[in-house]
Amino acid sequence: MLADPVMTQLQAFVAERDWDQFHSPANLAKSISIEAGELLECFQWSDAGDAEETVAELADVLTYCLLLADKLGVDPSDIVLAKLEETKKKYPVETAAGRSTKYDRLSD
Amino acid sequence: MLADPVMTQLQAFVAERDWDQFHSPANLAKSISIEAGELLECFQWSDAGDAEETVAELADVLTYCLLLADKLGVDPSDIVLAKLEETKKKYPVETAAGRSTKYDRLSD
Amino acid sequence: MLADPVMTQLQAFVAERDWDQFHSPANLAKSISIEAGELLECFQWSDAGDAEETVAELADVLTYCLLLADKLGVDPSDIVLAKLEETKKKYPVETAAGRSTKYDRLSD
Amino acid sequence: MLADPVMTQLQAFVAERDWDQFHSPANLAKSISIEAGELLECFQWSDAGDAEETVAELADVLTYCLLLADKLGVDPSDIVLAKLEETKKKYPVETAAGRSTKYDRLSD
Repeated sequence: MLADPVMTQLQAFVAERDWDQFHSPANLAKSISIEAGELLECFQWSDAGDAEETVAELADVLTYCLLLADKLGVDPSDIVLAKLEETKKKYPVETAAGRSTKYDRLSD
Repeated sequence: MLADPVMTQLQAFVAERDWDQFHSPANLAKSISIEAGELLECFQWSDAGDAEETVAELADVLTYCLLLADKLGVDPSDIVLAKLEETKKKYPVETAAGRSTKYDRLSD
Repeated sequence: MLADPVMTQLQAFVAERDWDQFHSPANLAKSISIEAGELLECFQWSDAGDAEETVAELADVLTYCLLLADKLGVDPSDIVLAKLEETKKKYPVETAAGRSTKYDRLSD
Repeated sequence: MLADPVMTQLQAFVAERDWDQFHSPANLAKSISIEAGELLECFQWSDAGDAEETVAELADVLTYCLLLADKLGVDPSDIVLAKLEETKKKYPVETAAGRSTKYDRLSD
């Protein structure tokens, strides 16, 4: 189970402020995109981002991801591992190693 | 600590394929935005997203978030909890409860 | 041709500040995503966005789109019309009318 | 006025398919973010994107931008020029030339 103490604290934070009403899956998905854009902004003009700001923005993306997982009733660790199994098949080591090519072009 | 077994498996997956060379913080930040867009697509025309697809796309966003945390040498749980402390101050229960107003307008 | 007066003014603005050095296609693509996130923020918790802010953020997205078109040496009007021709084939009126279904599922 | 022939064709395309019902400002804002992510994907692992794909994805972002401008009853050229005037003040040539620094840090 991923970070139960974290989820418990996030749930308490949300409940205290009566914010669950705003946390539809759609609104959380929008929030994840919005925070992802703020994270990307750390690298807007350069490949070297400020470490502190990058960590802060990453924390925001992760927070909304955990809230969405909770809303969907899934465990973040479980879904990452499940997806990893699928990805291993799409990108077999033999053909994918050392290449950033997308899976649908691996045999080009 | 957030999901050590997950991080260990992700690291093995990346190492096997010699993909670490592509995982600069900048490239991982771009990847998070890209996957966030695919997650958002589940809700493009409707507030009701297909549950299975939403979970799959959320898993992708989370995966890249974990890879970035690892690359930055931070623990995902720790940074989420640290950010939560800051957010509690920006949104005190007394003024923020039940309102989706952004913190810089809370006293309007 | 799309808004030559606009492109001329944008080019002058960029040249005056010696900013072309930052306007690689990759950096402009990141900028478009970043501004798209700020536009989306107008609708983060509600379907009703503030009109003034929405227009301001849309202007930012459009600005970077025009800069990227210029950098790629293409005319925005031309590429939109060219893409429209392709999209008409993917979404024939007979099957697509009144439905938001993505083209690869239209015959489900 | 920006590309009236383009807007006229886009409006006809949408009307023929009875798609205006899906084009709330919120849905169009989501669509812009989604397409921006697909554009960004051209540069996910490298600063060199495939020219043809980049143009195609940029066309998609622009298309949704034009649809949103139309929905909001504003002219794309006008709002870009209006925003440019504001940006000129935030980034005076004297302090901003040759620097990618954000306006709130220009005098650091």
